[in-house]
Amino acid sequence: MPEIIGVDLGGTKILARLVDPVTGKSEGRVKKPTPKSGPSDVLDKIVTVVDDLDPDRRAESVGIGVPGLVTESGVVTLCPNINGWDTPVDVAGILSERLGRTVAVGNDVNVGALAEHRVGAGQGFKDMATVFVGTGVGGGLVLNNRLVAGERGMAGEIGHLTTHPGGRQCGCGQFGHMEAYAGRAGLEAEARRRHAAGDKNELVRLAGDGRIKSSFIAKAIEAEDKVTLELIEEAVQALASAIGSMATLLDLPLVVLGGGVVDRLGQDFLDRISASEYFGGFGNHVCELRLAKRLDDAGVVGAAILAADS
Amino acid sequence: MPEIIGVDLGGTKILARLVDPVTGKSEGRVKKPTPKSGPSDVLDKIVTVVDDLDPDRRAESVGIGVPGLVTESGVVTLCPNINGWDTPVDVAGILSERLGRTVAVGNDVNVGALAEHRVGAGQGFKDMATVFVGTGVGGGLVLNNRLVAGERGMAGEIGHLTTHPGGRQCGCGQFGHMEAYAGRAGLEAEARRRHAAGDKNELVRLAGDGRIKSSFIAKAIEAEDKVTLELIEEAVQALASAIGSMATLLDLPLVVLGGGVVDRLGQDFLDRISASEYFGGFGNHVCELRLAKRLDDAGVVGAAILAADS
Repeated sequence: MPEIIGVDLGGTKILARLVDPVTGKSEGRVKKPTPKSGPSDVLDKIVTVVDDLDPDRRAESVGIGVPGLVTESGVVTLCPNINGWDTPVDVAGILSERLGRTVAVGNDVNVGALAEHRVGAGQGFKDMATVFVGTGVGGGLVLNNRLVAGERGMAGEIGHLTTHPGGRQCGCGQFGHMEAYAGRAGLEAEARRRHAAGDKNELVRLAGDGRIKSSFIAKAIEAEDKVTLELIEEAVQALASAIGSMATLLDLPLVVLGGGVVDRLGQDFLDRISASEYFGGFGNHVCELRLAKRLDDAGVVGAAILAADS
Repeated sequence: MPEIIGVDLGGTKILARLVDPVTGKSEGRVKKPTPKSGPSDVLDKIVTVVDDLDPDRRAESVGIGVPGLVTESGVVTLCPNINGWDTPVDVAGILSERLGRTVAVGNDVNVGALAEHRVGAGQGFKDMATVFVGTGVGGGLVLNNRLVAGERGMAGEIGHLTTHPGGRQCGCGQFGHMEAYAGRAGLEAEARRRHAAGDKNELVRLAGDGRIKSSFIAKAIEAEDKVTLELIEEAVQALASAIGSMATLLDLPLVVLGGGVVDRLGQDFLDRISASEYFGGFGNHVCELRLAKRLDDAGVVGAAILAADS
């Protein structure tokens, strides 16, 4: 098989595998903790991980998924989850020289979209998008079978579409963004605000001082907690509005949804989104919503596909 | 120069010119009325026009802009402004055989976007979009220097993004779409509704029973007519919200605006859009709004560029 090395650079670990980008099958596995001592040590560690995985140099290309903003040429301009990443680093340039292999670098959510497109729920679709609903809401766009990252690497940031003008403040500082309503963190902040204001609710009761996890959201829905049902309805509206806008603008036949919140709430949650009057748009009745396949090692597989496409 | 035939198929006329797709310069000009007797006669007429323009067969490729929905393979599925176009017609397939030349077919607004991208206000930008505010609001997307039309040819339909959930009815039948607020027809309908309800306004006074033209809108703004100022503020909000969503989703550095309403209201209108809190988004401060260049024969030039890109 034509092998490519996929690397998933995370905030806590670096994982690398040898991947067949056509089937998505992987072999080998090297995993190391992500250094906390800055990008230079992180790059050193990636070199070690790649050499350990493939000492015989079977693979000529390396794809790397990074939890940050990546320009089209592979410069990581922002990487808040990795310690000391204060200035842009030309990861593709530096690593291709040090590894003596071709290196492609992409945002982790974007390469996840490529994995869903090629070997997941989006197989066979030329155009599609993914939306991952977790702490925040991220997304990736695949048009004409290629990832659309944008020049600054910021394409697909569907969480920052304004769905409630003048509404709740988003983590990014602006107001009324979809993520402030549909992301777990935005939902948690609002649940705690209402709880403190006297609108007691199951979410805060279940979580106590801890994080309001997706499983607590599912439990509170089951218990028909009033505040939870209201917040979920707002999340549905926000997702419907933003996904509807995206589907209209890009004429998408498919949007694949995943992430902790979606995994918990399942198909019923998707059905509510597509049935919402906020889904609106023009011809959106043909835009299907599907659950992501939750592929094993989607990060490394997607990164390898990115390298294969480059 | 490498010449390509650009054809602009309109509801009333068919215009063809020989175009250099790199400079946008044109020569020759054949113009005929669009037959009212159905697509078959329209195609016959296009053949005549092309042969009249280029009897010596200097050009091997023909690009055609059509006021309707065009699939990626050049099938025109919907063309409401041309009489008798009741079923999908494989314009590219039929005409390439009859003309013995390569034929590319695109939506007229989309090929207009290509013209602005290559020889208009968007020169030098790899990614950009156009928004044309006329009777309705249409748009075109250029990503990575290529037109994004969508499989069904419906990409770029920014007028049908939901900016006012549950709001005014759009021409397409759904509710709260941007076009219902920013398009001339939506604005006219609302001005007449308010006038009839007792909220007398300059727009209806100036237009009488005729169409509320863009020039009347400009006059009513100058007269500081209360209803007009309210309607324009709503149009600004609707455009800001939809363009902001698009710019965020696609990481766009530039959006070019044109069409009757924009031509009349000018740069001040654009400044209000980009200053609006509804522009929102994530990093949209770097998305520039520019007036379209209002190129001569943008339709034929864009159609030729489409053919050159194919």
